[in-house]
Parts: sequence; structure tokens; C-alpha cells
Amino acid sequence: MSIHLIVLEMKKLLGSLDHCLDKAVAYGSERKFDANVLLQSRLAPDMFSLLRQIQAACDQAKYAASRSAGKEPPAHPDNEASIDDLKKRIGAVVAYLGTFTAADFDGVESRTVSLPRWEGKKMPAADYFVEHAMPNFFFHFTTAYAILRHNGVPVGKRDYLGAISYK
Amino acid sequence: MSIHLIVLEMKKLLGSLDHCLDKAVAYGSERKFDANVLLQSRLAPDMFSLLRQIQAACDQAKYAASRSAGKEPPAHPDNEASIDDLKKRIGAVVAYLGTFTAADFDGVESRTVSLPRWEGKKMPAADYFVEHAMPNFFFHFTTAYAILRHNGVPVGKRDYLGAISYK
Repeated sequence: MSIHLIVLEMKKLLGSLDHCLDKAVAYGSERKFDANVLLQSRLAPDMFSLLRQIQAACDQAKYAASRSAGKEPPAHPDNEASIDDLKKRIGAVVAYLGTFTAADFDGVESRTVSLPRWEGKKMPAADYFVEHAMPNFFFHFTTAYAILRHNGVPVGKRDYLGAISYK
Repeated sequence: MSIHLIVLEMKKLLGSLDHCLDKAVAYGSERKFDANVLLQSRLAPDMFSLLRQIQAACDQAKYAASRSAGKEPPAHPDNEASIDDLKKRIGAVVAYLGTFTAADFDGVESRTVSLPRWEGKKMPAADYFVEHAMPNFFFHFTTAYAILRHNGVPVGKRDYLGAISYK
């Protein structure tokens, strides 16, 4: 199985997140509140807010792809302040993930990844993808969904998974 | 990258979940409540309780491995009623996932998966793994973690990710 397949899944799930944000805006309209207030919501006082969860999900998907492919990712300065801003950020990462081809991941077995906070330690790129980037992506993506759900936004498992390609 | 690598990651993450349940029990002792009350907690009234989230995370990991490898999985009747019961269920699935080798997934490209509720539709086993089993696993696993966190259990990202194998 190619890492590319999982990168495409992350791209799809970021599309789901964008769709869930649309549902949050519609829910706000219906209930007469500004959906942007949800961005400061969190499940515990020492967890990231929805805003940070979405930024982190975007970053983890971006880094999962770029570091496995040995490419320099685009920078995103975390300056979003509204759902509109976050939808643009998601759109930028979805577009970036769309630039990868299966061939970009061919050399993953020979690559290593090292993050600044690892103090010189490193790991094979495939292990980084599976042990670090992918679970971190799902952590922030799922928590973002859970915050919306906890606040009454009418999203369900289908909004999370998106369309399944059985035929 | 082998599907086996991701199955081993799911196995590791179920170990993290077991560890988080230990922390929940310790937190209950410290705060003088029965940690089993957490099993009925949920983030929204129409979401699964912690009990069901953990059962579902176990099932998704089990099915991810067995269906990709073309094997019949062991049955688990969802009769758990306590944290002790759930720890046994997790232990059984961790042991089951440990029986797989990389070679078990060699034929994944030629396998298809079809679930009863798909009404005769099917999909390639690798697509099933990436589009269905894996995100469903992370959905239930992360939501279980979030329910504990939301209830004050002192778990953090390291408890979620477990040890990272950089060197």
C-alpha cells in the first residue's frame, strides 16, 4: 500500500472538516448565534480550542506528506481568526496535498525525519508517518469534530468519513 | 509501506487506551468515585458512550487486520459492563493483532471486502482499510480519549501517542 493512499485520505477528511464547518455556520444561522464563537470552545480547559485543533490537523497532514516525500512544505503562520479564515487554510492544505503523486513517496524507505524538539534524534520516514504524523492528524481532526458535536452542531459519522468508494 | 505497520500502530494505540483506563481508575480512587461511572459518559446525547466507543475501537482494529488479511476474526459479543471487562477485551484484541505478520497482508491487492449493510457492494481491501476501518478506528479511539479528558482524567497527548521510536 502506498503512503499516497493515506495522504489522499487525509485530503478527503480535511474536505469533511470543511463541510462540518459549513454545517456549524448553518447551525449558527438557524439558532441565531455567530458560529465563530465555537472556535474558542474546547473539551477541557487544558486542551486546544477548536481553532487550534483545526490548525494542528492541517499542519499534521501537511507534514505527513511533505516529510515522507522529502519536500519543503509551505508555511502557514497560524493567524486565522474566523471560520472563513480556517476554510481558506484547509483549502490551501487540500490543494497542497493534491500536488503529490504516488511516485513522490517512492523513496520513503531511505528517508529519515528529525524534528527540532527531538534534540538530534531521528526516525525512518515511514515510522514517522505511522507513529507520529498520522495519529496526530487523527487526534486533532477527530477532536475538532467532537467539539462541534459536543456543541450541538448536527454532524454525524457520515460527515466525518465522507463518501466511501464501494461499488 | 506495509499495512502490517499500521496494524501494529493500532495495537500500540489500544495499549495506550488500556493505560488511559488505568489512569481513569486511579483518578477515581483519588477523587473517591467509582471510575466505572465514566463508561456511561458521552460528548453528546446521540453519540456512543465511552463503553461503546471502546468496544467499537476494538472492533475496527480487529476488522481492519482480519479483512485486509482475508481471515475470519474472533467474535466478541459486546457484553462488557466494567473497566475490568473492557481491559480484557482490549487485551484480547491486542493479542489477536499480535498474531499477524507482514506476510499476512501480501495479498491485500487482490482481496475485496463487502459488509452486510453494503447490500452487495464491495471495495478493494486496501481501500476498505484506508477509507473505512482506519478512520473508524481513530474516530472511536480518539473519542474515547476525549471523553476521559472531558471528565478530568489527567491524560495527555503522550498517553495517546505512546512512546515514539526515534533514536
